[in-house]
Amino acid sequence: MLSKKYLRTALVAAAAVVAMPAMAQQNYKADSTTIKNIYNNALTSFDSYENLRYLTKQIGARLSGSPQAAAAVEWGRQVMEELDLDTVYLQEVMVPHWVRGDKEVGRIINSKLVGAIDAPIAALGGSVGTGDKGLSAEVVEVKSFEELEKLGKKNVKGKIVFFNRPFDNTHVQTMSAYSGAVDQRGGGPVAAAKLGAVGVLVRSMTNDYQDVPHTGSTRYEEGVTKIPAAAISTNAAEKLSSLLKDDPNLKFYMRMTSETLPDVLSYNVIGEIKGTERPEDIIVVGGHLDSWDLGEGAHDDGTGVVQSMEVLRLMKDLGIKPKRTVRAVLFMNEENGLRGGRKYAEIAKAKGEKHLAAIESDAGGFTPRGFSLEGSEAQLKKLQNWKPLLAPYGLHDIGHGHGGADIGPLKGQGNVALIGFRPDSQRYFDYHHTAIDTFEQVNRREMQLGAAGMASLVYLLSEYGL
Amino acid sequence: MLSKKYLRTALVAAAAVVAMPAMAQQNYKADSTTIKNIYNNALTSFDSYENLRYLTKQIGARLSGSPQAAAAVEWGRQVMEELDLDTVYLQEVMVPHWVRGDKEVGRIINSKLVGAIDAPIAALGGSVGTGDKGLSAEVVEVKSFEELEKLGKKNVKGKIVFFNRPFDNTHVQTMSAYSGAVDQRGGGPVAAAKLGAVGVLVRSMTNDYQDVPHTGSTRYEEGVTKIPAAAISTNAAEKLSSLLKDDPNLKFYMRMTSETLPDVLSYNVIGEIKGTERPEDIIVVGGHLDSWDLGEGAHDDGTGVVQSMEVLRLMKDLGIKPKRTVRAVLFMNEENGLRGGRKYAEIAKAKGEKHLAAIESDAGGFTPRGFSLEGSEAQLKKLQNWKPLLAPYGLHDIGHGHGGADIGPLKGQGNVALIGFRPDSQRYFDYHHTAIDTFEQVNRREMQLGAAGMASLVYLLSEYGL
Repeated sequence: MLSKKYLRTALVAAAAVVAMPAMAQQNYKADSTTIKNIYNNALTSFDSYENLRYLTKQIGARLSGSPQAAAAVEWGRQVMEELDLDTVYLQEVMVPHWVRGDKEVGRIINSKLVGAIDAPIAALGGSVGTGDKGLSAEVVEVKSFEELEKLGKKNVKGKIVFFNRPFDNTHVQTMSAYSGAVDQRGGGPVAAAKLGAVGVLVRSMTNDYQDVPHTGSTRYEEGVTKIPAAAISTNAAEKLSSLLKDDPNLKFYMRMTSETLPDVLSYNVIGEIKGTERPEDIIVVGGHLDSWDLGEGAHDDGTGVVQSMEVLRLMKDLGIKPKRTVRAVLFMNEENGLRGGRKYAEIAKAKGEKHLAAIESDAGGFTPRGFSLEGSEAQLKKLQNWKPLLAPYGLHDIGHGHGGADIGPLKGQGNVALIGFRPDSQRYFDYHHTAIDTFEQVNRREMQLGAAGMASLVYLLSEYGL
Repeated sequence: MLSKKYLRTALVAAAAVVAMPAMAQQNYKADSTTIKNIYNNALTSFDSYENLRYLTKQIGARLSGSPQAAAAVEWGRQVMEELDLDTVYLQEVMVPHWVRGDKEVGRIINSKLVGAIDAPIAALGGSVGTGDKGLSAEVVEVKSFEELEKLGKKNVKGKIVFFNRPFDNTHVQTMSAYSGAVDQRGGGPVAAAKLGAVGVLVRSMTNDYQDVPHTGSTRYEEGVTKIPAAAISTNAAEKLSSLLKDDPNLKFYMRMTSETLPDVLSYNVIGEIKGTERPEDIIVVGGHLDSWDLGEGAHDDGTGVVQSMEVLRLMKDLGIKPKRTVRAVLFMNEENGLRGGRKYAEIAKAKGEKHLAAIESDAGGFTPRGFSLEGSEAQLKKLQNWKPLLAPYGLHDIGHGHGGADIGPLKGQGNVALIGFRPDSQRYFDYHHTAIDTFEQVNRREMQLGAAGMASLVYLLSEYGL
């Protein structure tokens, strides 16, 4: 029944064409054919999906410094070797090695109302442990740092500070709701410790009401006591908050044996197709190979990894010889250190490499919506001129916005455009940093469409630059 | 990080405003505020989600003529009564009463290669049974009706015809892949019976490779023998097809006790808010209350039902008094007869009602993409003029296309615009007509955004007509 709709899309495209000079029209027709071929191939090949299955099911969670992270590096290298690229190599980088230790125990205790009940928690990445015996203390709930300051030492000393500001669900883009809440996770422990708190609980970063805690990085500060910090599931956070209203003297027991071990040697994995006309102009497409240690790191960021390699596979399989160099980079240690991204930028600078653009897929393998640019108005205009080629595939949202964490350190190197691949954001924080970020949550076609969209943009960049 | 993006959206909108005359600018500002209020309310209210939970978990599957369908009618009436509308009423309609009977048995037998193995099948809606003993016969596989004709009576007589044309995965919109395959399900039994076949197997209508069969309606013809017809899971279809290549004489055993009972009295459920200025102009928003008997009918079409009622709840809760009449219609019997849709149009015509527009949500509760119009160029132009108000919420695709099955019979009554709500289509056929179309597959926010998008369009239609 959508054939009518196709017709219309064609008409729109046609209209766009009519408005173009003859040369542009020729290019438009050739480019739209190439892009259609990219989509046809991506939607009928199972390679990227099977790659994701292997990464998530055979290797699984792969936190920096873990044996699984090492396995992921070797797997990525082998997959790229099989693509018959011009170059495949590893880039050394020392990464942090934090370990979660025993499964955490979280429990509301001494409650006049419920006695003792379990509350699912997960140590935040980088957090110190509680010691074998764990710690128990009264809980003080806050929604903001201002509120915490007002409470002051006398109300905070010796207590567990419970940061419970929820996502603002009125944001249509869940990423903005995340941005409005994640300061609690990053900055909570230092702010609480400065007032004498003994521990921190942070409401999980999700729009959903769940029993699974969402982990993620936190920070400590030189000269401020490092106190244990954990994420608490949203359902448990709601329960704890309601109990505190009538029973402010209840206590919370938490036990975590997490610790930070010496740094470990690891690698970024890089594969590239040399440009035929301007090999010195480099277009990066990437995602991060590491994941949190819960779940399988499927949407974060297994899909970004296999989509980035799929871009190269599509070009090879379709015989597309890019005029500019196309390089897939599987970054190590995005989650708790960004060492891979920093190292990549450092070496690029040292080598005097010229990066035209860097595209990152690190927002999940969901149905594509567009691209967000950290770059100039002129670069944005050029990207938006390609809308008639991309909109028929649902890539409508092309505007200024975040590029990506791993490609961020490239900023300022020449005129590089940092481009974030933007899938639909609604489901991302249902799974983000949890035990339920698994292969089963990825829809094959949504992920394939993302890879095809990325490949289409890479193709246009390699043909026309920016 | 998307705040920049918001800024840009605002700028785009601003640009659009600048291009408008003063009066239009005033309206634009008021309308964009109203629409923002609609989204804020929809994204922070759990009513529609809890309604869906009740419909799917407390009532469940609700095929026409079943006790659960009757329960759904009474539930729908009660939910709308609680909305304090101007009118809530039931519309009588006689519906078919087909029952599946015992769980079907499907088995590949007499295979030289595997002996006997089970193959998941589901009787197609309306199919006759096989009798208690079931039937077993050799299998002839075809991909098209042309191929079947060529085979002719001599190769088909006494056999089971296996229609195995898969979805064409190169279609970006899965609805078009469905359109390209579903003729096998509807027309297979008649075409096969005309050549003396004793049964029909149809490859399940899905892009995915699964073990669950996808049911759906089939047709018989006066004077052509009614032979049993079942959907077979895609995994089993692949297996059967590969076995047939080396073992063309294997047999398939199928047992189904499905049958059609006498028609049953049922109802469309209708609730409305009278227009303050042009009450005679009616805007319908609807979905269908019945579902197949497998699963819970969550995406098909529980979400359409609760979204339609949510449109009315939002208007009441926000104190929006529509200038034109807004009517939610929960149609009965979309799946196997369309009796509710036909009855509704028949009565509207008899009453001489004037329908301005009818919007149907029957493509799943997925993240919104836009609307497709069965109507005039002038109507399309007017809809597209509202893009600056709708695009910030991801509603980009506004073009000609299918309206909806239930609203279809209204076509030709005056100048009515038939409008299909278009969510993203990638996941729909993973669940469509199966045992796995359950509440758990619906993302709360995606469904809420759909309701908000529908309410925003209804609001604009009620203010400005079409």
